[in-house]
Amino acid sequence: MIISEKEKRTTAYHEIGHVLVALKIPESDPVHKVTIIPRGRALGVTTYLPVDEKHTYSKEYLEATITYALGGRAAEKVVFNNFTTGAGNDIEKATNIARKMVCEWGMSEKLGPLAYGKNEEELFLGREITKHQDYSEKTAQDIDEEVRAIVTKGRNRAEKILIDNIDELHRLSEELLEREILDAEEISKILKGEELPPAKRNGMHNNSDTKEEEVPEHVKKLMEKKNIKSPEQPNTDKGNDSN
Amino acid sequence: MIISEKEKRTTAYHEIGHVLVALKIPESDPVHKVTIIPRGRALGVTTYLPVDEKHTYSKEYLEATITYALGGRAAEKVVFNNFTTGAGNDIEKATNIARKMVCEWGMSEKLGPLAYGKNEEELFLGREITKHQDYSEKTAQDIDEEVRAIVTKGRNRAEKILIDNIDELHRLSEELLEREILDAEEISKILKGEELPPAKRNGMHNNSDTKEEEVPEHVKKLMEKKNIKSPEQPNTDKGNDSN
Amino acid sequence: MIISEKEKRTTAYHEIGHVLVALKIPESDPVHKVTIIPRGRALGVTTYLPVDEKHTYSKEYLEATITYALGGRAAEKVVFNNFTTGAGNDIEKATNIARKMVCEWGMSEKLGPLAYGKNEEELFLGREITKHQDYSEKTAQDIDEEVRAIVTKGRNRAEKILIDNIDELHRLSEELLEREILDAEEISKILKGEELPPAKRNGMHNNSDTKEEEVPEHVKKLMEKKNIKSPEQPNTDKGNDSN
Amino acid sequence: MIISEKEKRTTAYHEIGHVLVALKIPESDPVHKVTIIPRGRALGVTTYLPVDEKHTYSKEYLEATITYALGGRAAEKVVFNNFTTGAGNDIEKATNIARKMVCEWGMSEKLGPLAYGKNEEELFLGREITKHQDYSEKTAQDIDEEVRAIVTKGRNRAEKILIDNIDELHRLSEELLEREILDAEEISKILKGEELPPAKRNGMHNNSDTKEEEVPEHVKKLMEKKNIKSPEQPNTDKGNDSN
Amino acid sequence: MIISEKEKRTTAYHEIGHVLVALKIPESDPVHKVTIIPRGRALGVTTYLPVDEKHTYSKEYLEATITYALGGRAAEKVVFNNFTTGAGNDIEKATNIARKMVCEWGMSEKLGPLAYGKNEEELFLGREITKHQDYSEKTAQDIDEEVRAIVTKGRNRAEKILIDNIDELHRLSEELLEREILDAEEISKILKGEELPPAKRNGMHNNSDTKEEEVPEHVKKLMEKKNIKSPEQPNTDKGNDSN
Amino acid sequence: MIISEKEKRTTAYHEIGHVLVALKIPESDPVHKVTIIPRGRALGVTTYLPVDEKHTYSKEYLEATITYALGGRAAEKVVFNNFTTGAGNDIEKATNIARKMVCEWGMSEKLGPLAYGKNEEELFLGREITKHQDYSEKTAQDIDEEVRAIVTKGRNRAEKILIDNIDELHRLSEELLEREILDAEEISKILKGEELPPAKRNGMHNNSDTKEEEVPEHVKKLMEKKNIKSPEQPNTDKGNDSN
Repeated sequence: MIISEKEKRTTAYHEIGHVLVALKIPESDPVHKVTIIPRGRALGVTTYLPVDEKHTYSKEYLEATITYALGGRAAEKVVFNNFTTGAGNDIEKATNIARKMVCEWGMSEKLGPLAYGKNEEELFLGREITKHQDYSEKTAQDIDEEVRAIVTKGRNRAEKILIDNIDELHRLSEELLEREILDAEEISKILKGEELPPAKRNGMHNNSDTKEEEVPEHVKKLMEKKNIKSPEQPNTDKGNDSN
Repeated sequence: MIISEKEKRTTAYHEIGHVLVALKIPESDPVHKVTIIPRGRALGVTTYLPVDEKHTYSKEYLEATITYALGGRAAEKVVFNNFTTGAGNDIEKATNIARKMVCEWGMSEKLGPLAYGKNEEELFLGREITKHQDYSEKTAQDIDEEVRAIVTKGRNRAEKILIDNIDELHRLSEELLEREILDAEEISKILKGEELPPAKRNGMHNNSDTKEEEVPEHVKKLMEKKNIKSPEQPNTDKGNDSN
Repeated sequence: MIISEKEKRTTAYHEIGHVLVALKIPESDPVHKVTIIPRGRALGVTTYLPVDEKHTYSKEYLEATITYALGGRAAEKVVFNNFTTGAGNDIEKATNIARKMVCEWGMSEKLGPLAYGKNEEELFLGREITKHQDYSEKTAQDIDEEVRAIVTKGRNRAEKILIDNIDELHRLSEELLEREILDAEEISKILKGEELPPAKRNGMHNNSDTKEEEVPEHVKKLMEKKNIKSPEQPNTDKGNDSN
Repeated sequence: MIISEKEKRTTAYHEIGHVLVALKIPESDPVHKVTIIPRGRALGVTTYLPVDEKHTYSKEYLEATITYALGGRAAEKVVFNNFTTGAGNDIEKATNIARKMVCEWGMSEKLGPLAYGKNEEELFLGREITKHQDYSEKTAQDIDEEVRAIVTKGRNRAEKILIDNIDELHRLSEELLEREILDAEEISKILKGEELPPAKRNGMHNNSDTKEEEVPEHVKKLMEKKNIKSPEQPNTDKGNDSN
Repeated sequence: MIISEKEKRTTAYHEIGHVLVALKIPESDPVHKVTIIPRGRALGVTTYLPVDEKHTYSKEYLEATITYALGGRAAEKVVFNNFTTGAGNDIEKATNIARKMVCEWGMSEKLGPLAYGKNEEELFLGREITKHQDYSEKTAQDIDEEVRAIVTKGRNRAEKILIDNIDELHRLSEELLEREILDAEEISKILKGEELPPAKRNGMHNNSDTKEEEVPEHVKKLMEKKNIKSPEQPNTDKGNDSN
Repeated sequence: MIISEKEKRTTAYHEIGHVLVALKIPESDPVHKVTIIPRGRALGVTTYLPVDEKHTYSKEYLEATITYALGGRAAEKVVFNNFTTGAGNDIEKATNIARKMVCEWGMSEKLGPLAYGKNEEELFLGREITKHQDYSEKTAQDIDEEVRAIVTKGRNRAEKILIDNIDELHRLSEELLEREILDAEEISKILKGEELPPAKRNGMHNNSDTKEEEVPEHVKKLMEKKNIKSPEQPNTDKGNDSN
């Protein structure tokens, strides 16, 4: 896969967008590693490290996840004032979490502690299931508004974080363009202004570094809930998917 | 399954939320036992003891059930001012009961003694059934409003009960954190301010104590009615499901 | 099946609610027998005796049927000011008849002599049929309003009859609680204030008395019309179904 | 099949309602015969005689057909001020013709010469077809209004004809009750006040008289058009179907 | 097939309606022949002759086609002030073309150069396809209005042409009644007031004259586009279908 | 396939419409070749040359693609003030891209970074999937408006480019009519006013020139995304499809 310099640059900023937003929100999963070495259809990947195994998720954690998921797109907006199709997965992920917050987990004040759309599905063996919405157009509209409000709030918060930390965004992105991979320690050093040892990996595409990251189990669970179309690497923000 | 102290604490308050709300409403099933020893995907479970086998359910009983189902979430709100995804099952249960009160049992003054959505399903052998709503958008909106009103009333009532009894909520939750299991008698003693014998179970995960509680038959029946997606342990409020 | 005294009492009043309303409306089928000896899932059953075989049904007959179907629920309301889930079948039956009056039999002045929803169903062998509504949301709303008006009128009429005859309601219900079965003649005597011979059946659960009543053929036909989900004993008002 | 005197009487008026309305509208098919000897599920039948085979149908002919189809119900209304379920087929027939006038034959000024609902059905062998409406709710509402207007106009016209000719309605109905069958000639004589020969058929259920009337071919064609659920004897108005 | 004089007359005027409208619009396909000798279910047929094979169709050509398709119905209106069911096919054809103009070919100024309803259909082998509309009710309403406007414009134009040329309409129709078939040359002579040779065909039903007209290939293509339910002889206006 | 001079002319202008619009927008793929030698059902084809392989697509690139896709139709409008059915594919392509910009790629300011309609599809082996819209009518309306705004903007921009460069449009179209094929170099020379060597190909239908153009891989990917009904040659604008 040959990638143009322009796309590489967009990808680096996109990934650092995820990284920087996640770093600035205490409730986020900590960033583990970020890379712009292409893997499969993804031009870049950010992976996260869970502090401890979670079994339930707080509203704040979910809002944080939506926010750093939109961090990549926010970086494209803030730096290049443009969007690419590469944020499609991030958008889908953020929307799905927000919708479940409203429709399953009762986290919208307006809609209240009610379940929406969990209607009766009776499986007759070998026959199909048609899932119908079990609420009115009026309620559908309320749900849409709440979901849109949650995602938009995350978008705005991500953009604000990046604008407030624009220097760090540039510094990290340039370093990522140079080294292609950055781990948590290196990111930390860059942010503190410390010198990094010379990049060895650049251009080498060292296999051991790019081997598939383990997706944290607790994240898999969240995403595997039946209504989220589970992406292959759910808690990695694949910055710029090649479409 | 390793559970963080924070999740354990949230779970204890969630379960005691169910317990305390149920205790304060005369029409509720009496609490039998509550535990925060994890079982399957549930981090905690509250079980109830039916006084006598019921064949029909009064409106007041159903309202009580909705209220104590939302007691866990209410405790999270009142104590931590936050929500977790662990209340998803409680929310679904409360919504389903409220919807049936309105659409099948004629318990909404506004909608009247009419059946909504029980439309003709003719089963042609080996063919599928598509269930269509047989009422107008306007009626769907009325139904939504009534269902939302019933659930919201239960939520408010649960929160008020816990705020009015905030000391008991703390005392019971702390004791549950200490002992991991409390039965009806122990709960009663704690509430009366009596001394409990030293906790023997703590940390032991004694199997005989945690064996699957029998779900009361009369509750199974209510839940098994075809439109309620029967959860495995319907009349146990599994506080914080790990998702 | 063990039934609490409270449920038995509710059931007796529910059944006598059907009986008394039917007796007070000339167009009703005459009551044949009423029992609170449980049968299957039903806690009580009222059966009716057709005067002569009917082939068509007048609007007045249908309105009477809706009214006495709601008589059980009306009795719960008037006497206990509460509702139970046991009226679910009655509600479904009343709604179905009212809907057919509006949509098939042209008995609503507002909707006129039109058929609604009888749309083209072409059966291709071995394939399914999806039934779609063939009218607008506006019409669906008109239909809902008319159906609701018909059922509500029946509900109000049933409640008025019982309030106007509250003494008879108590007298008959107490006697039914005592004897568990009453036939038409006994009901008539009680209403006239005549002495009944001592109850022999009480507690005996005499099989010959409780054997399945024949459902009058003409009623089966009305109910078997394809859009009514035919209950097992359509013209018997099974008072308090155990759910 | 045993029929009560009351039902017989209702049936006679219902059938003569068809007969008299058809006689008074020049565009109607001429009445051939009318009977209240039950046949299958029908308590009475009126059959018509086409003057000549038609291949297309004028708007006036269709309006006449709707009007005399509703003549039976109009007679019940005018004479007994009540309705029975026996008019269900008549209502369906009138509605279907009116709907086709609007949606297929462009006979509504408001909706214009457009086809509504004839949307693309592609038959993939062995697979099903879902028919969706291809117009907006607004258009659906316009269609409903036009269809209702056409049918209501026919209803009003039928009632007016019967009120204007109430004596003939009584005279023919009484004679039909007496003789059970009347043919076109006898009807004509009664209307002219001529004496009929003594009824021979009364009570005899002479087979040769009641053998199945041939349904005129041109009527079969009109009704067999795919969207009309073809009743068994389309151009016979089966007065009071036993349901 | 025996056809009454009245139907024959209506058919002649209906067919000449097509002919005359097509002749007066330059963009129309030229008329090839017109006949009122019945063929299959059609009482009359007009066939057209394409000047040259077309691969694309201009907006003006499509508008012309809609207009002459409605010419038959317009003649019935103008001459007899009545409609028959025989125009059903014409109406469907005009509606389908107008709908495609709006929804596929971007020929409505209001709706713009967008495709409506061409949504994703993924064919899984051996499984069915449900086609859903992918636009809002508001858009559906806009589409309906535009389609109705296009068809209504064609209707008005057809009626105006016939009123403006009412003498020619009568002259051609009478001649067609006389001769049963007219070809392009004969039509032209009649319009110029020239004498025709004596009709040889009248009453003969000469087979060679009535053999199935070739449907021009370019027209088949237009109609065969997947959303148009292809009639057997698409570019022949079968005047009065026997229904 | 015989094509009239008029259609050939329309086709030439249609294709040059694509060419000229693409040339005038920097973000467009560069034009590779254009031809009016018919191929399959297409009367003309324009092919494009990607500068470098793209993996993601910017908003500007997508807007450019919509604009030059509508360039063919714009040329018909500007020069002939008419439309043909030949632009159906262009319209579908432009609509699909615009819809994905709004619903998948978060490129509408109003709708925000949310995914619309990507709802849960669970594939049960061997069973079908029904895709339902998961948003309200209100949102559907917002989406429609945004999609329409994007496409209309592209249409207006295409028309403006052609009006501003009307001389070049005529010059290129006339040359294409003459030579039937033009490659990028020849187009460039014509625009610079340079002399072209005498056309050799005219009328020859040289096979080697008309062999199927390779569709650039990166374009295939964009179009193959599951919601775009992939046309056979997606990044070639087949000007005037024969329908």
